[in-house]
Amino acid sequence: MLDIWFTENHTEGYKVSWRIDKILHSERSRFQEIAVVESPDLGRALLLDNTVQTTTRFEFIYHEMIAHVPLMIHPRPQRVMVIGGGDGGTVREVLKHPTVETVELVEIDERVIQVSKEWLPQLSSALNSDRVKILTVDGLQYVKEKAAHYDVIIVDCTDPGGPSLALFTKDFYQDVYNALTEDGIMVSQTGSPTFSPHFVEAVKGIRQVFPCSSPYLTCEPSYIAGFWSFTAGSKKYALDTVNQDRMAAITTRYYTPEIHRAAFVLPKHIQEQIK
Amino acid sequence: MLDIWFTENHTEGYKVSWRIDKILHSERSRFQEIAVVESPDLGRALLLDNTVQTTTRFEFIYHEMIAHVPLMIHPRPQRVMVIGGGDGGTVREVLKHPTVETVELVEIDERVIQVSKEWLPQLSSALNSDRVKILTVDGLQYVKEKAAHYDVIIVDCTDPGGPSLALFTKDFYQDVYNALTEDGIMVSQTGSPTFSPHFVEAVKGIRQVFPCSSPYLTCEPSYIAGFWSFTAGSKKYALDTVNQDRMAAITTRYYTPEIHRAAFVLPKHIQEQIK
Repeated sequence: MLDIWFTENHTEGYKVSWRIDKILHSERSRFQEIAVVESPDLGRALLLDNTVQTTTRFEFIYHEMIAHVPLMIHPRPQRVMVIGGGDGGTVREVLKHPTVETVELVEIDERVIQVSKEWLPQLSSALNSDRVKILTVDGLQYVKEKAAHYDVIIVDCTDPGGPSLALFTKDFYQDVYNALTEDGIMVSQTGSPTFSPHFVEAVKGIRQVFPCSSPYLTCEPSYIAGFWSFTAGSKKYALDTVNQDRMAAITTRYYTPEIHRAAFVLPKHIQEQIK
Repeated sequence: MLDIWFTENHTEGYKVSWRIDKILHSERSRFQEIAVVESPDLGRALLLDNTVQTTTRFEFIYHEMIAHVPLMIHPRPQRVMVIGGGDGGTVREVLKHPTVETVELVEIDERVIQVSKEWLPQLSSALNSDRVKILTVDGLQYVKEKAAHYDVIIVDCTDPGGPSLALFTKDFYQDVYNALTEDGIMVSQTGSPTFSPHFVEAVKGIRQVFPCSSPYLTCEPSYIAGFWSFTAGSKKYALDTVNQDRMAAITTRYYTPEIHRAAFVLPKHIQEQIK
């Protein structure tokens, strides 16, 4: 067996290695190093700056949880913005909701989109839909220009550091708030509650801006071990609202209305972290 | 900084490495290789056959979830058996329940107990309690000799392979059933639903024997990534029963009655795995 490994350093003292069979693609874009590798345990993996972003084996967990939670809270989501998410996985899940008329994908790095279109069709084919509008601009700037327009905004960005650091600040969350309609909902991936130094800050930033907010948890085996968090902010609806009727039209592998509610139940030590 | 790493091979194509500062202890017992190391990310870690069993940083997650779930379901747990668990962490949590009169710790390898007493006092000091009876015998045999005696039996064993493989079979679960009183409850750690080849078999074995059974999930950062499972089997009580009044006497860092119920909500793909 080939003894070739990809290694990701999660902290200074913790790293994970996945055996790989092939490096399908590798380039340096204007923003970051982009690679696609194939691994027996992960399937095909998209790496940005040597960090696993998504894998064909496990991406359903992350993408269903980042998309269906905010969309199912909203009674009739029509206009959705996804910031980041150039692989197309989040957009694919958003499009499962029949009420959605347009999804704007605001991805700063068009090379991520192109590479995903070539190597990750299971995710990126959603980007060909008539309902999708792709903008390769800086989401941070773009969101500032919008007011009271979107029902749901999903921040599907890389972890803080480099281009996405500003997407974890209160100022940005305020811009997101303003870009949402009066009953709008936002969600951002907010990293590992255990290992990310930005988790608490992000949760508190969203809480300062939205009347109703909370992290919710999943567990994605291709990311750092322990829980993975998203944080939702809502202007009007309680976060455990689930417009369950819509499930009839939606096929999922991870998400259920029960999982939606259970994901907001936080272990005591995480509750205390964000007090 | 010292560049010394401990590496655990989770699968043929997936391994995790933790930087270590010290090897505090290392020996080969009659049953396995036992080591205690110190790591900046994990605290102190107990390794059996090069596999992380427990770490001082994260052990509360595993030990609270394996102990409080079955004990809180039972209205008045008095006699408890723990199979495995020589580090003492599970016993420590069991002893928090004031109704518990005796905990038998049935650990096949007395060296695990001795090493834990020396190096992991935060877990093992519980073993000095008057309410604890330690038996260094084979749990598989010991449980066969008992009938209708225990209110709760907790199987806190290593992953299948070597000495603990038989602890994942229907025959063993039948012996556990017989050793429990008429309203008794068992729980076993049943590994990673994602990566363990024995998860489904263990869940189905417990289901064949107990009228009421289900896996429940947590996420322990020092184990393999993704969810970690326990499976509970109950003769009489529904698994979402929580004798909540008892929480007044019990201090936890992870467990809450809400977490208890949420842990039994399984993602759709795990529900389908065990159908």
